[in-house]
Amino acid sequence: MSKFWSPEVRELTPYVPGEQPRERLIKLNTNENPYPPAPAVEAALRDFSADHLRRYPDPTSFALREALAEELGVDTAQVFVGNGSDEVLALSFQAFFRQPRPLSMPSISYSFYPVYCRLYGVERRTHPLDDQWRVDLDAFPADAGGVIFANPNAPTGHGHGREAVAGLLERITDSVVLVDEAYVDFGGESAAPLIERFPNLLVTGTFSKSRSLAGLRLGYAVGSRELIEGLERVKDSFNSYPVDSLASALGIASLGDHEHFDACREAVITTRERTRVRLETLDFQVLPSQTNFLLVSHSELDAAQLFVGLRERGVLVRHFNTDALRDHLRISIGTDDEMDSLIEALESLCR
Amino acid sequence: MSKFWSPEVRELTPYVPGEQPRERLIKLNTNENPYPPAPAVEAALRDFSADHLRRYPDPTSFALREALAEELGVDTAQVFVGNGSDEVLALSFQAFFRQPRPLSMPSISYSFYPVYCRLYGVERRTHPLDDQWRVDLDAFPADAGGVIFANPNAPTGHGHGREAVAGLLERITDSVVLVDEAYVDFGGESAAPLIERFPNLLVTGTFSKSRSLAGLRLGYAVGSRELIEGLERVKDSFNSYPVDSLASALGIASLGDHEHFDACREAVITTRERTRVRLETLDFQVLPSQTNFLLVSHSELDAAQLFVGLRERGVLVRHFNTDALRDHLRISIGTDDEMDSLIEALESLCR
Repeated sequence: MSKFWSPEVRELTPYVPGEQPRERLIKLNTNENPYPPAPAVEAALRDFSADHLRRYPDPTSFALREALAEELGVDTAQVFVGNGSDEVLALSFQAFFRQPRPLSMPSISYSFYPVYCRLYGVERRTHPLDDQWRVDLDAFPADAGGVIFANPNAPTGHGHGREAVAGLLERITDSVVLVDEAYVDFGGESAAPLIERFPNLLVTGTFSKSRSLAGLRLGYAVGSRELIEGLERVKDSFNSYPVDSLASALGIASLGDHEHFDACREAVITTRERTRVRLETLDFQVLPSQTNFLLVSHSELDAAQLFVGLRERGVLVRHFNTDALRDHLRISIGTDDEMDSLIEALESLCR
Repeated sequence: MSKFWSPEVRELTPYVPGEQPRERLIKLNTNENPYPPAPAVEAALRDFSADHLRRYPDPTSFALREALAEELGVDTAQVFVGNGSDEVLALSFQAFFRQPRPLSMPSISYSFYPVYCRLYGVERRTHPLDDQWRVDLDAFPADAGGVIFANPNAPTGHGHGREAVAGLLERITDSVVLVDEAYVDFGGESAAPLIERFPNLLVTGTFSKSRSLAGLRLGYAVGSRELIEGLERVKDSFNSYPVDSLASALGIASLGDHEHFDACREAVITTRERTRVRLETLDFQVLPSQTNFLLVSHSELDAAQLFVGLRERGVLVRHFNTDALRDHLRISIGTDDEMDSLIEALESLCR
């Protein structure tokens, strides 16, 4: 604590991301993609001249937004980009959720949402998951000051289909419904095609997971022109150029390479299902997942102890020390070899 | 306006950066460096493998902060980095200036400061420049909720020496004094060595100007451990990884290349002084500058018309349409050839 801090800063409880360890570990803790970015990204990197960096980027990131719009089948004016989807989410909280009525969110979802609430002074209301650990869309009240959830949800893995999201949007018309689709490419169904029907729908996405570009920090939002304009007003009052020239060029290259994109996400899905079966033979309960991770628990073994035992065996997974998740481990999907090592380590721990 | 926006968003007046034109113009409007980044930056770019990008960056940006600390002669724990100094400034407003008492700033300074005030609900108090258009350090009251000014100031160009800033800090001890040193490398004197003496001093800097890396978005702050910790709390509640892996690697490379750095800033200073003399022979009033731009006015010719005439002749400068600056043009320092073209265009307009 310092007398120089703004009073609100004393109340903040920052988000804690998964560890980026310095030692060599099989890293299954931050939902990174085990495969490299598209070859087109490497080619764009090789082609990029450092001399371009002396100029400021295009503050509107037009070329990147145009490429995303084409990929997503929307207009460029319906696309917003930012320095990772975390930044896009933060700016969305500022742009839409500072309302007199509280923001509704699931009791278990991306743990950054409550952090944004504190940062921007947004009151929140949480709604329990249903009995199968799915987001309960019916629980969100029509008079909410806004709704946010991850779909597929994190760290639970279940995703609702587009029609279920449309049903929610038919009920909630007075405030922004933000659907965070960070994991959608691993088996979910995107709500993005609904933005024409629902002016209050904002869908966010990221290049970090399915495009293997977590290190580059690229995220986006799609929505009606009026929502995108709200985001632009906040962004232009915060940082004129949040997306750097190199990130923009590499992001565009990534969007152009469909073959690599499809091959990687299919490999992750195949490995995920193979891993699920093997975990179940070790008596783990494994939630169904449309993401690149599995949330697992064991009826006899303590999750925190498993986390430590795995780490001792060179495998890093994620353990959330909260009431709701203390009995679970979140395991990112790596390569088949990496998952073999995980299973081997778990076998020795289950003995 | 949209009913979905947070009420505060309706009141925002975003910052408007200088144009990034698509046509080929001699671009003297956004204070970019006319010289490329250090050869070491190009080399680091060539060495960087796209495969690294599938991993998240180090959330603490330790290696970049360590390199900056060495360059600036401070501890790594006294350094904060962000996605351009605009982001660092924005987070500083949130971390330090949301106070019951108003923030003090010069009436003419970086025009983003009032935008941050509106974004974060910070009340401000402005103080006129002195009769030579210098920041009047004596005008800042000891009971301010904070003080911010650019030093050298923008767009006026004058910088106060370290001892003058120390004098201010001896008077103002209860709130944060933020000295924005975006332009310091072109002839100013950095206040950074004062951070040991004054725990309320925060000095910000950028890689955009003297390091020719505007397109990369790298900025930083140095200050006491308690100020840096305040910034970290806000950053970790906003975006865990604001600095991407590539930007970090290229920034470190830039810091290692002193020879190129010194050659470029000396070239800019030499060209600035040569340009000043030539502008004065065309009857321009030219404010003394310790930056990479000149603020000029002409007793007979209208600045807005000169701006248009220059643009028609292929030279883009900056004109601010405010009461205080309407009679002035801000001209960034380019290469000698670019400045020759500027002078030629002005000669034809002065005829």
